[in-house]
Amino acid sequence: LPGMQSSGSKPCPCPGFKLREVASMYFTMVAVFLVILVVALQGSAPRGSDFPYKVPLDPQGLLELSWNVSYPQQVVHFQLLLRDLRFGLLFGMSDRGEFENADLAVLWSDGHNSYFGDAWSDAKGQLHMDSQQDYQLLGARKAPEGLYLLFRRPFSTCDPKDYLIEDGTVHLIYGILEKPVHSLHAINISAIHRGLQRVQLLKPNITVPELPSDMKTMEITAPNIVIPSQETTYWCYMTELPADFPKHHIIMYEPVITAGNEALVHHMEVFQCAAEFDSFPHYNGPCDSKMKPDRLNYCRHVLAAWAMGAQAFYYPKEAGLAFGGPGSSRYLRLEIHYHNPLVFEGRRDSSGIRLYYTATLRRYDAGIMELGLVYTPVMAIPPGEGAFILTGYCTAKCTQLALPAAGIRIFASQLHTHLAGRKVVTVLSRDGRERQVVNADGHYSPHFQEIRMLKELVAVFPGDELITTCTYNTEDRSRATVGGFGILEEMCVNYVHYYPQTQLELCKSAVDPGYLHRYFNLVNRFNDEEVCTCPQVSVPQQFYSVPWNTFNRDVLKSLYSFAPISVHCNKSSAVRFPGEWEKQPLPTITERMQEPVPHCPPASGHQPATPVSLNLGPLRRD
Amino acid sequence: LPGMQSSGSKPCPCPGFKLREVASMYFTMVAVFLVILVVALQGSAPRGSDFPYKVPLDPQGLLELSWNVSYPQQVVHFQLLLRDLRFGLLFGMSDRGEFENADLAVLWSDGHNSYFGDAWSDAKGQLHMDSQQDYQLLGARKAPEGLYLLFRRPFSTCDPKDYLIEDGTVHLIYGILEKPVHSLHAINISAIHRGLQRVQLLKPNITVPELPSDMKTMEITAPNIVIPSQETTYWCYMTELPADFPKHHIIMYEPVITAGNEALVHHMEVFQCAAEFDSFPHYNGPCDSKMKPDRLNYCRHVLAAWAMGAQAFYYPKEAGLAFGGPGSSRYLRLEIHYHNPLVFEGRRDSSGIRLYYTATLRRYDAGIMELGLVYTPVMAIPPGEGAFILTGYCTAKCTQLALPAAGIRIFASQLHTHLAGRKVVTVLSRDGRERQVVNADGHYSPHFQEIRMLKELVAVFPGDELITTCTYNTEDRSRATVGGFGILEEMCVNYVHYYPQTQLELCKSAVDPGYLHRYFNLVNRFNDEEVCTCPQVSVPQQFYSVPWNTFNRDVLKSLYSFAPISVHCNKSSAVRFPGEWEKQPLPTITERMQEPVPHCPPASGHQPATPVSLNLGPLRRD
Repeated sequence: LPGMQSSGSKPCPCPGFKLREVASMYFTMVAVFLVILVVALQGSAPRGSDFPYKVPLDPQGLLELSWNVSYPQQVVHFQLLLRDLRFGLLFGMSDRGEFENADLAVLWSDGHNSYFGDAWSDAKGQLHMDSQQDYQLLGARKAPEGLYLLFRRPFSTCDPKDYLIEDGTVHLIYGILEKPVHSLHAINISAIHRGLQRVQLLKPNITVPELPSDMKTMEITAPNIVIPSQETTYWCYMTELPADFPKHHIIMYEPVITAGNEALVHHMEVFQCAAEFDSFPHYNGPCDSKMKPDRLNYCRHVLAAWAMGAQAFYYPKEAGLAFGGPGSSRYLRLEIHYHNPLVFEGRRDSSGIRLYYTATLRRYDAGIMELGLVYTPVMAIPPGEGAFILTGYCTAKCTQLALPAAGIRIFASQLHTHLAGRKVVTVLSRDGRERQVVNADGHYSPHFQEIRMLKELVAVFPGDELITTCTYNTEDRSRATVGGFGILEEMCVNYVHYYPQTQLELCKSAVDPGYLHRYFNLVNRFNDEEVCTCPQVSVPQQFYSVPWNTFNRDVLKSLYSFAPISVHCNKSSAVRFPGEWEKQPLPTITERMQEPVPHCPPASGHQPATPVSLNLGPLRRD
Repeated sequence: LPGMQSSGSKPCPCPGFKLREVASMYFTMVAVFLVILVVALQGSAPRGSDFPYKVPLDPQGLLELSWNVSYPQQVVHFQLLLRDLRFGLLFGMSDRGEFENADLAVLWSDGHNSYFGDAWSDAKGQLHMDSQQDYQLLGARKAPEGLYLLFRRPFSTCDPKDYLIEDGTVHLIYGILEKPVHSLHAINISAIHRGLQRVQLLKPNITVPELPSDMKTMEITAPNIVIPSQETTYWCYMTELPADFPKHHIIMYEPVITAGNEALVHHMEVFQCAAEFDSFPHYNGPCDSKMKPDRLNYCRHVLAAWAMGAQAFYYPKEAGLAFGGPGSSRYLRLEIHYHNPLVFEGRRDSSGIRLYYTATLRRYDAGIMELGLVYTPVMAIPPGEGAFILTGYCTAKCTQLALPAAGIRIFASQLHTHLAGRKVVTVLSRDGRERQVVNADGHYSPHFQEIRMLKELVAVFPGDELITTCTYNTEDRSRATVGGFGILEEMCVNYVHYYPQTQLELCKSAVDPGYLHRYFNLVNRFNDEEVCTCPQVSVPQQFYSVPWNTFNRDVLKSLYSFAPISVHCNKSSAVRFPGEWEKQPLPTITERMQEPVPHCPPASGHQPATPVSLNLGPLRRD
């Protein structure tokens, strides 16, 4: 055992822990002793059991993050389990998971001494100590499974170099330091083992409703399948409810994950099939297989959805999701997205979702309503746009007709776009004034679409407007992206979960096609282009032939914020409510919601801009 | 004498001062004693002679403001002379001189005690104490002429309720409290005697160049005229240089104001007439008189310009403004704007400008160049716009051709628009990157157009671009405002004063007329309007017939930021430099200048949010 070093006055020797790989003589010579020298305990460090949320960061599951959220303190407490500590790690947050312009907590060791500090990376990826130390180290703890690091971070630090933790998706990034580093500046983030994990950090602080004594469970799980040895798989498995299964209410559901596969199961959804077909074929295989029966495309009604980092989903105590009984299909489709970037082979899996249901029906059936844009090519995004905005409207006229006088309560929301989506926001407007954000995700990713319980119910009354705005990035595309079902086409949808259920299933809009036709005429004339705008040319073809200069881009934006809309105010049967829905005026907003002013922690709470020194003495094999 | 009151521990009795009007028994009963109770002297209060800038606030000259600027401290020191104190006054700043949303220093008295505080007015004009006290009272001093109040104010306070003192015009407001008030909240700003004065608070801190021993002076002044008894008069007076007056350099000029008329003389300009006419008629009368000879319209070359609050104007030591000698006219026109809102009658005036000139020519002739927009109706502003932006370009191609390799130095600038102008900014761009602000006025007023010396010389080299942006407000107009010479038409001009003089007299632009024609076609087709866009209809008529919906407004903006431009790159003789100047591409900007981050004073420097108590004991007649 090499000589143990102690660089300070309060050494606290901790047992060494396992070094997984011995890569060089240097590595074999070093031993791990973790000595916390200077750790200002700001508030008491929560115990391990106090972290209700957990997610693996890397595909091997070597780094595991747990956390909790204190809304009164506006602080997140993190517990990071490092199963295999090398010479430190980077953990942090950035706008979309990039390592440039990121806000980082860094633990680094020169082989003898170790340090913890709040850092940031510049546009070139160079690390710098932060002038305000807002990742506050609370402690470190050795356990047989690895090293636990505890630290906290306020939602908002008011340091312009820091990430602002907001509702919606947060892109967490991590990097593992596999060699000793002598300073923060010596870390080359492009050369380290690193990755990204998306989570909803600010989970809602809901009260779990009381569960009935007659509650039963049903597991919709994959039948011990072999996860394909490829990065991305969408697995489809068909199952069915028992014959003559009467109407029940789903009141809760939770994930069932096969032990060891926590880092591979990315998201799962249970869909109910369409009632108009008496039967559906069995199927158990990849969703994109040629062998998959086409009829499975009619299994699209979401019963449950889970994504990595999410917990159990609870319906509000007044409502449940109806399933079973006459008028609904017995057939269910389970879809699992496996994310296997390390291409593990032969992993078996029986993950799925456990439904909790009751025959004692609650007062209200829950419903799902689709807000946003109609799936139509008339809504398009020019190529090369950094942040192009499309807006879909659920108009006052539709809610007036379709909602009960007592209104509905939205309790959950699932945002949806295809690959170009970057932000999605739905706002409730009443009498032309924006009143409440229904759901907002400023760091939305199409790769992380979970059903999110809302922090508070949103009451929607007849005459209210629900305005859904999606922001797209098409910088990597060379032709226009039109609306549609294809993966390279776009959508802008918010599936809101509400009660009591109404006939209104879809409240969406798109620009009036006649006005779009005028747009094509206009840009072609303006640009002296001989482009055919004859009726026989499809809308996508017309968009593809637009020469995208700044004028044509600007005028398309002007068109979308001016032209009347076609409103889809539809019943369950995809039939419109009676009324005139074409060439409707755009809702006018006379008063916008104010951006919330970030609450800053008091300046005295900040630690100085120097790293906390640890004695992470030479590593040794356990 | 009524009993003197003392409300604190450090009474400092000062002699009373004159009450100009005795309006009521109450007024006659009170006597003035000023007792400063709590005045934290933050730095030493400058003496009266330390205030180089002075301006009357009200048309009677009862309130007189002097000030100085400390750039190292980023602070303005104010000295306010109240010749006739009643029960206090309001003094402050607001975006455009309005009394709502204003940042105010208030001195108020309940008849016994008096208070000074930093306040703000809300959107309804209600006054509130500021949570940060940033107008800091430094002292008060009684003199035979009245009461002097001394206070200071940082440029930036970082209090969102406060006005940010920036370069360019500042709208100062004042109000006189003629009745006792028992609290700040009791002040009804709509009921008080109040007014507005525009000044450039942040005067440049220039070094006065050494003046030659052979310097002579010449006064161009009105010949003891009677100021008309009407609010606004532009007076025109023709005079001439001696015969055979050789070439000289004007190296400085300053205002000459008839004593007592300081508050009436709003601004003055000396113009040189066009050299192509051998003689000009004499004239002495209002500029808008039918008696004024038309030929006087050819006297437009600015030799000197002064506006209220401005000081002497100095040319840089390397340059002077040529006048006299062959090739220039002997005839000069003096124009004086008298602002006489109280309609004083029979006031005689001999104000004007004193030119300091030398026969020992300096190294360089100074020149004046016109930047911005061509005077043409193709550049127009829709009605009802709050902040519509038009931009004029002096392109790289023009500066490449017309400027010497060593470049030119801009040392002064006069911004010019007509009545709708609200902001004017000229920025220097090199290689597509904005480098330097030439002159910016975010609170520009067409009623306050002075030649401003720049804080630092701006070097312009061949290939540089000078981009002038004007912001207009047309909320009170019902039809489009087109570019042109008329007072209800608009201009966007920056007259820059520079050396060495070049042939380039005008470097401006306007949108290509062909593209504008396409715009008219486009909006008429888009809106299904049967508006004639035939060539025989004038551009103004076409603008007047556009139906101004949001689409047509947006598309006009898009046109102006996309369409190629016609560049006027002209020599003194209104002849273009040789080259192709039509359908030129718009300069592209790849990097914008960063907004400066306001420097905030340290929090400890703030006084608590309570008024400073004074004992302004009962007023008495002196």
